[in-house]
Amino acid sequence: MSELKNDLILKTLKGEKTERTPVWMMRQAGRYLPQYMELRNKYGFFERCQTPELACQITLQPVDIIGVDAAILFSDILVVPQAMGLEVQLIESKGPVLPNPIQTANDLTRIRVPDIQETLGYVCEAIQLIKKELNGRVPLIGFAGAPWTVLCYMVQGKGSKTFDEAKAFCYQQPELAHQLLQMITDTTIAYLQAQVAAGADTVQIFDSWGGLLSKEDFETISLPYIQQIVAAIKPHAPVIVFAKGAWYSLAEMAQTGAAALGIDWCTPPELARQFAGRNIALQGNFDPAKLLSPIPVIKKEVKAMLQAFGGQQYIANLGHGILPNVPVDHAKVFVDTVKEWHPTFN
Amino acid sequence: MSELKNDLILKTLKGEKTERTPVWMMRQAGRYLPQYMELRNKYGFFERCQTPELACQITLQPVDIIGVDAAILFSDILVVPQAMGLEVQLIESKGPVLPNPIQTANDLTRIRVPDIQETLGYVCEAIQLIKKELNGRVPLIGFAGAPWTVLCYMVQGKGSKTFDEAKAFCYQQPELAHQLLQMITDTTIAYLQAQVAAGADTVQIFDSWGGLLSKEDFETISLPYIQQIVAAIKPHAPVIVFAKGAWYSLAEMAQTGAAALGIDWCTPPELARQFAGRNIALQGNFDPAKLLSPIPVIKKEVKAMLQAFGGQQYIANLGHGILPNVPVDHAKVFVDTVKEWHPTFN
Repeated sequence: MSELKNDLILKTLKGEKTERTPVWMMRQAGRYLPQYMELRNKYGFFERCQTPELACQITLQPVDIIGVDAAILFSDILVVPQAMGLEVQLIESKGPVLPNPIQTANDLTRIRVPDIQETLGYVCEAIQLIKKELNGRVPLIGFAGAPWTVLCYMVQGKGSKTFDEAKAFCYQQPELAHQLLQMITDTTIAYLQAQVAAGADTVQIFDSWGGLLSKEDFETISLPYIQQIVAAIKPHAPVIVFAKGAWYSLAEMAQTGAAALGIDWCTPPELARQFAGRNIALQGNFDPAKLLSPIPVIKKEVKAMLQAFGGQQYIANLGHGILPNVPVDHAKVFVDTVKEWHPTFN
Repeated sequence: MSELKNDLILKTLKGEKTERTPVWMMRQAGRYLPQYMELRNKYGFFERCQTPELACQITLQPVDIIGVDAAILFSDILVVPQAMGLEVQLIESKGPVLPNPIQTANDLTRIRVPDIQETLGYVCEAIQLIKKELNGRVPLIGFAGAPWTVLCYMVQGKGSKTFDEAKAFCYQQPELAHQLLQMITDTTIAYLQAQVAAGADTVQIFDSWGGLLSKEDFETISLPYIQQIVAAIKPHAPVIVFAKGAWYSLAEMAQTGAAALGIDWCTPPELARQFAGRNIALQGNFDPAKLLSPIPVIKKEVKAMLQAFGGQQYIANLGHGILPNVPVDHAKVFVDTVKEWHPTFN
């Protein structure tokens, strides 16, 4: 394995100072890139995920085109329920559909904590290939969904604004819900360990639907399982935890042992730091829609964000995934503005 | 006009003590009620809104069936863009569609600040009828959307998770956006004044998409217009402001002169009070999905909410609209638990 030429993000995750602020973008390998769209038009979603050459090619696109300081594995959080034995359909215009969702105790017999090499070996192959192709240019971020977010899809069976059926499942059958969450957690730990063993330099846990829960529910249904994952992975690689919308539990998330916390754009940087404390890196939080602004506005707002977070203990990123309608040069301006920025002391 | 027999909510909005905590539910006149579904199956959405007898009948259903402490006018926030001259389609299974959304300066010539009696006179008639039928049993809440939330639909043309086109419109054409926001604000002020003149005892401003904005954007794009509305209506009736998700600006919202602030379930009651300060009533914040829990759980959680907010300066409510799949007896348990509650001092 070649030595990393750009280890800015890893240094930040270790709590070390860096010569400049590192930057990447959630969903940076995605639909806003014409080069991605070409592959998307040729191959189905799971074909792109499951073919290491395609996953590798897509993962590298933003490194080459946008110049980010990390690659993030091209995959989807729903490969985990798929590996556990649930059918997952990803229809491009419609979003994910799981035609036989989990509803009863009996449904749990249909799924299992799988052997990772057997079910998700293709991810490990992709990671090995990506690491080889990256050749030390930037680190590689692996990822998985948080167990609560994965449960949302396994129970609701499709996307939702409220995920009320997933919540009702947890409220009506709490023991069963915790059993399912534990199965997802065990799978996710083995999966992330395999990602790290294959070469991922760090991993991010995405709790996209954490913020649909009250603080009490988040800390009952979601956080304990994130905590288990962090504890298991931390000895092998630093972990970034991003629970979108769950600002109210940033202090508790900071206690999990995570190396960094993702922050959405609705949490002001100063408050994020106040909630999370001083001993953890923060990552975020540019409003993805703001990349649709004119370029001078983007530059101004990125600088304001950098100034508010401060240049250290901080990874510049969006507050959620990049939108498909963002012009490529706007994405590039975002990255370049971070790279060129120097803190001012006023 | 008969004198109010139950003025608990109005007393709370005036800052007076009440013998018990008042309670109502957002979307209480809605799809979870079989009696509403009967009318929904017979009449189109705008027919229900525009026929005072139907709007009255629907508005009164939850007062009779669930026993809430206020009626809220049955209508929709999109009657405002409709009155301003935009076509609005409400397709029951699909949500709202505005086939010719606002995109350019030229589009603004297609709309106007309308005469309220001419365009929304049917709402005033409905209010007069409702007040007569209520006969002083409980107060009547009028409402309108916050200008930002109304702009979301006028520009995006349909529902959205991100309302990125509406945001892009504000970021790319800020002067035009402020011009549109001012037109919506002027219409809304006249509309709410007409509601109060017709008999509404208080009004609520719904900023359903306020929480999609960063704090800075919320305070540029949304709050100044809410502020204008509160200032104009306050001399005539108390105003409740509910900006879902905008916890970060509760302190600023409390400065508008609003009599109460709506709180969603993701903002813990103690923090809501801390942010909003002591001189304003709070309203909320039960997770609507939690009404899908078993009845003993609902009772326990409602009591915990009441205890956390305290019984005074407080209106019990959900943290967002009631879901269509909530059993009627669960909704009733919510209301009854509030009515029967007495504070414990432990």
